[in-house]
Amino acid sequence: MSGRRLHIQEVGPRDGLQVETRFVETADKIALVDLLSQAGLAKIEVTSFVSPKAIPQLRDAEVVMREIQRRPGTLYTALVPNARGAERAIESRTDELNLVMSASVSHNLANLRMTQAQSFAALAETARMAQSAGVAVNVSLSCSFGCPMEGDVPEAAVLDWCSRYVGELGCGGVTLCDTTGMAYPTQVERLAQAFRERHPGTELTLHFHNTRGMGLANVLAGIAAGADRFDASFGGIGGCPYAPGATGNVCTEEVVHALQLMGYDTGVDLAVLLQASRRLPALIGHDIPSQLVKAGRRLDLHALPADFDEIRTRAEARG
Amino acid sequence: MSGRRLHIQEVGPRDGLQVETRFVETADKIALVDLLSQAGLAKIEVTSFVSPKAIPQLRDAEVVMREIQRRPGTLYTALVPNARGAERAIESRTDELNLVMSASVSHNLANLRMTQAQSFAALAETARMAQSAGVAVNVSLSCSFGCPMEGDVPEAAVLDWCSRYVGELGCGGVTLCDTTGMAYPTQVERLAQAFRERHPGTELTLHFHNTRGMGLANVLAGIAAGADRFDASFGGIGGCPYAPGATGNVCTEEVVHALQLMGYDTGVDLAVLLQASRRLPALIGHDIPSQLVKAGRRLDLHALPADFDEIRTRAEARG
Repeated sequence: MSGRRLHIQEVGPRDGLQVETRFVETADKIALVDLLSQAGLAKIEVTSFVSPKAIPQLRDAEVVMREIQRRPGTLYTALVPNARGAERAIESRTDELNLVMSASVSHNLANLRMTQAQSFAALAETARMAQSAGVAVNVSLSCSFGCPMEGDVPEAAVLDWCSRYVGELGCGGVTLCDTTGMAYPTQVERLAQAFRERHPGTELTLHFHNTRGMGLANVLAGIAAGADRFDASFGGIGGCPYAPGATGNVCTEEVVHALQLMGYDTGVDLAVLLQASRRLPALIGHDIPSQLVKAGRRLDLHALPADFDEIRTRAEARG
Repeated sequence: MSGRRLHIQEVGPRDGLQVETRFVETADKIALVDLLSQAGLAKIEVTSFVSPKAIPQLRDAEVVMREIQRRPGTLYTALVPNARGAERAIESRTDELNLVMSASVSHNLANLRMTQAQSFAALAETARMAQSAGVAVNVSLSCSFGCPMEGDVPEAAVLDWCSRYVGELGCGGVTLCDTTGMAYPTQVERLAQAFRERHPGTELTLHFHNTRGMGLANVLAGIAAGADRFDASFGGIGGCPYAPGATGNVCTEEVVHALQLMGYDTGVDLAVLLQASRRLPALIGHDIPSQLVKAGRRLDLHALPADFDEIRTRAEARG
């Protein structure tokens, strides 16, 4: 296991910033993405080409995508909800379009206002647009580990949708999303393993939220099943509309810190990543969930007490 | 693995409440412990028989220990720093004395103001007192996974201390404490396995703090190494003097929730445990780290949107 390469994919600029009440200035967004690139992340979800009315926080999608500095080795992706978004993303030189639908019938209707069949048809259209422009396609399947309204989502349904994305849409990657933090380790291992057996040539990403504290445990369960791509958000920003006050995505620096200690090769410069996260509170106007920013890395040591020598001398004098 | 019995040991009434600025009334403490007993926890660290001047939050140790309702199947333990504490604990009918020293030379001096040799001698004295009173003895070894001032603590040193507790003091249990959240999963697996090989007849407890977000992952690593006893604090209360604002012990309800989903038998009634945690904010005067209290259990479902039927009808009408 030791030394195995894992790909850490940053989703904070999209999944995190989209739920903030404060608009982060375009220049600040660009600087953040540039710093995340410098940190060596394998993929960065830069923004979402969604309607500026629906998500005003990301209304500067074009400018951000065009003006970031592209680092070789980092893939720049964006969430694209429809054909109009796909046009904008392609014009802005996005490396990959990330398309989305839900594994849950109810969640797909409630969130996307389409039946799953309608969503799949829309995905097929945007996938064709991307492919004729030579742009990569990834499909993100929300509620792959459970739906906050329906409960369990049958694994067979999840796997069937995945087969259609790979077989009918020809997408290069699929992300199994734990949209509201319902995934648990044994389930993750089972589903990731089943996916990999069926689609060994397709990039599998696991996208966890830490809503119920199982985020990192789920990442490790995914690794045990052979998965090697994980979404995470710097600072742990993001959230869950069904759980006010709950934390969001698994925290990038916490995932990287743990994986590096375990001997995995993440390709990430943790010190640079932490710089990016430390900028967040001033930009979004509140504290961030990241515990690593508060506690420091494992070997960021603390000074001995000022009176340590005195304590020792006294103790030793007692024999 | 499925169905394996794991012992969840509650340390919140001691490790959590001792760092609170607000004094929790004695009657409230007793009611909390009684509710935790009802939840079916295997062991509860009820209090600490420390000097009331040093930790005024636990100045009611005797009354609490005497007036709680004892549930068969729950063991009631208390932290005991010295012979005076051991006397008080034994008089108060404590089932087990939990003795403590640090695996780190500097941390032992800085926190206990004794050399390790002096601490060991004190442990030997209190262990003898407990044993002649027919009371069980557990030794908690702080900084077993690293010291915030020294960094790594050699595993050989940790294991040597453990051998002395078992061989020379005759203690029935040892707790490897991750005092400041420095443990990581591969390290946990290695150390727990080494302990179990050397001391198959001694109860091993793993005590993790979630300071850097690795708590649950460390619990699962411990289980993989055969450990079956884990300390945790309800609500995730507690803290770390070296990381202001950092969370404390792993959160009992989050650990139980995850382990139950994975098919382990914890013996814990999660609904009752959550009742206890939900009482905490009013008693300690601030929000608690528990994410499960915020987000609810995995299958605590949410209602469909009020206009869901309308959304569906409209979507389906589009064909």
